[in-house]
Amino acid sequence: MACIDRILSGWYRIDLPQVLTDATHGEMRGFEIVTARVFDTEGAEGVGYTFTCGRNGGAIHDLIGREIPELAVGEDADRIERIWEKLWWGLHYGGRGGPTGLAISAVDIALWDLKAKRAAQPLWRYLGGRGPTVSCYAGGIDLEMPIDDLLRQTDDNLAKGFRAIKMKVGRPKLSEDVSRVAAMRGHLGADTPLMLDANMKWTPDQAIRAARAFAPYDPTWLEEPVAPEDVAGCARVLRDGGVAVATGENLRSLGDFRQLIASDAVSFPEPDVTNCGGVTPFMKVAHLAEAFNLPVTSHGAHDITVHLLAAAPNGRFLEAHGFGLDAYIEHPLEIRDGLAIAPERPGHGMAFDWARLETVKAN
Amino acid sequence: MACIDRILSGWYRIDLPQVLTDATHGEMRGFEIVTARVFDTEGAEGVGYTFTCGRNGGAIHDLIGREIPELAVGEDADRIERIWEKLWWGLHYGGRGGPTGLAISAVDIALWDLKAKRAAQPLWRYLGGRGPTVSCYAGGIDLEMPIDDLLRQTDDNLAKGFRAIKMKVGRPKLSEDVSRVAAMRGHLGADTPLMLDANMKWTPDQAIRAARAFAPYDPTWLEEPVAPEDVAGCARVLRDGGVAVATGENLRSLGDFRQLIASDAVSFPEPDVTNCGGVTPFMKVAHLAEAFNLPVTSHGAHDITVHLLAAAPNGRFLEAHGFGLDAYIEHPLEIRDGLAIAPERPGHGMAFDWARLETVKAN
Repeated sequence: MACIDRILSGWYRIDLPQVLTDATHGEMRGFEIVTARVFDTEGAEGVGYTFTCGRNGGAIHDLIGREIPELAVGEDADRIERIWEKLWWGLHYGGRGGPTGLAISAVDIALWDLKAKRAAQPLWRYLGGRGPTVSCYAGGIDLEMPIDDLLRQTDDNLAKGFRAIKMKVGRPKLSEDVSRVAAMRGHLGADTPLMLDANMKWTPDQAIRAARAFAPYDPTWLEEPVAPEDVAGCARVLRDGGVAVATGENLRSLGDFRQLIASDAVSFPEPDVTNCGGVTPFMKVAHLAEAFNLPVTSHGAHDITVHLLAAAPNGRFLEAHGFGLDAYIEHPLEIRDGLAIAPERPGHGMAFDWARLETVKAN
Repeated sequence: MACIDRILSGWYRIDLPQVLTDATHGEMRGFEIVTARVFDTEGAEGVGYTFTCGRNGGAIHDLIGREIPELAVGEDADRIERIWEKLWWGLHYGGRGGPTGLAISAVDIALWDLKAKRAAQPLWRYLGGRGPTVSCYAGGIDLEMPIDDLLRQTDDNLAKGFRAIKMKVGRPKLSEDVSRVAAMRGHLGADTPLMLDANMKWTPDQAIRAARAFAPYDPTWLEEPVAPEDVAGCARVLRDGGVAVATGENLRSLGDFRQLIASDAVSFPEPDVTNCGGVTPFMKVAHLAEAFNLPVTSHGAHDITVHLLAAAPNGRFLEAHGFGLDAYIEHPLEIRDGLAIAPERPGHGMAFDWARLETVKAN
């Protein structure tokens, strides 16, 4: 039996080459990466991480580096469900989401990486093994980007192999959103999937008005039309807006997803493996979605998530985020003709360049 | 105009004289207190705090001491709704609950303290001024306490002026819970309110079975019968169990309370001012409850909360928590014949003994 021997945390800040904007997070100048390295008593290592838009990283670093080891060290590294419950309930009061949820996610990812590595299997095979390819889209953070630049960015993404595009909406004037969406649809032609992301900007009625205005441009989904806690509002948008709804990056538990899914409030549940609690709840959300005849998609951390969507029968539309992490890892995700390819390397197969990360240490 | 000049954080650990237990938090050996001191540019000070059952304190301390000042310093200290939104959305990604919610709560309490102090009013008058007294109960953390000790603790509480008692349930055998509740009811007589707290121990069906077994002993409420995210389950317990349901200490937003209240899933909403986001959302939850013809009660931080329940027309059953904080403050809460008395001192009128707190610094 291999037990958890130690857990190391690292906190890094990756500045963006240009300031990015969406409808609610204001200007984003950089992302924080907080890593979790789990070593077992036989010397094997699993690696996980979480990320933020620039805040809460210090809190997460303290949780992974100081508190979680107090609860997890000495546990049988293979019994992830047990460790997960111990962390969830051990940190529940004052935890249950927020930085605590992100910290647990990073450690859980590391545990699954370790487990699959020890089984000498890639994570996507270990977790179900639907098949190594996942449809994929390029997610832009481009609310303030002039239309010409937006279309140029799209051409770059098409040249990189993407065959589906997401753009931000939620500008002060709906007419501006609509003309940008119209320009994008004209540029892409009829058959390329186009996703729209409002980042929780609207009330339900504003969102319904917007969805109806976007409908002629055939969006694959409208993402986060309202705040994540407004389940009834989200259900109204889906029912009355005439456009599929994606949401989930700001939900923090299986129960939160059940609420949304069982209320007919979402078409594309999109858990983020780095904040929903890790691989453990992500796969449960995927299977819950399947039970409701829904696909499961994703937010963030495409290198990890490609395995989860490649494992589940209903996994599709992996979001590929470009915030500069590729420069700090070996083997960036391969994308070919609209498909992301889950690697055959053991575990999730993503390896950080630790020396390079040291140069952007946040503390 | 007085602006926020600086915010100081303090992190303390108060050990308990004896280990306490409930159905899900395991053994509690101490509580963490994280304080927020907000100073304005005219030298006035507001004080807030949050607490945990022993975990997440370092994360909260980092948020209050490092990140929140970056967002709040320079803001007009009187415009709390504006500051609150700035903090909520500035910290939303990776925040929205957990340690971030507790940190915002502490700062928000300090801002309301500052505001009421500057108006030379006690907070309960400033926020609505129903009247200075609030019915109050003693909340024991006593799941493992032998029955004799439990009744002795109850006698101590009655001698201190309490006229309502809460005890823990959720032992491995329901029959043990029932005989303890029966003994307590026999000890108290028919007319003393008795609350039962299961700390999220059960599935909905287990909770309904327990509620029906407790019903003959006339509990005022059954608290947290199921996990906070199980809204539909909580509604079933309330509908089918035959006992009023209290819950809320693990909810983190106005939207979470709306979900529960609008789903007929709670009889006594009980926000905790130190984790629901502070005074700002607490009062909104109180008024939301009023709109649904429900009382509002509370969890934790009785020195602050007494003002909020004394302000609202539907405020009742303040929980008095005894975890040793009284030794570190001036003017502990006055309780007379079952009523807590909101003080007439400006602000919340609770003052820490900072020198004494220094002796239990956590970092």
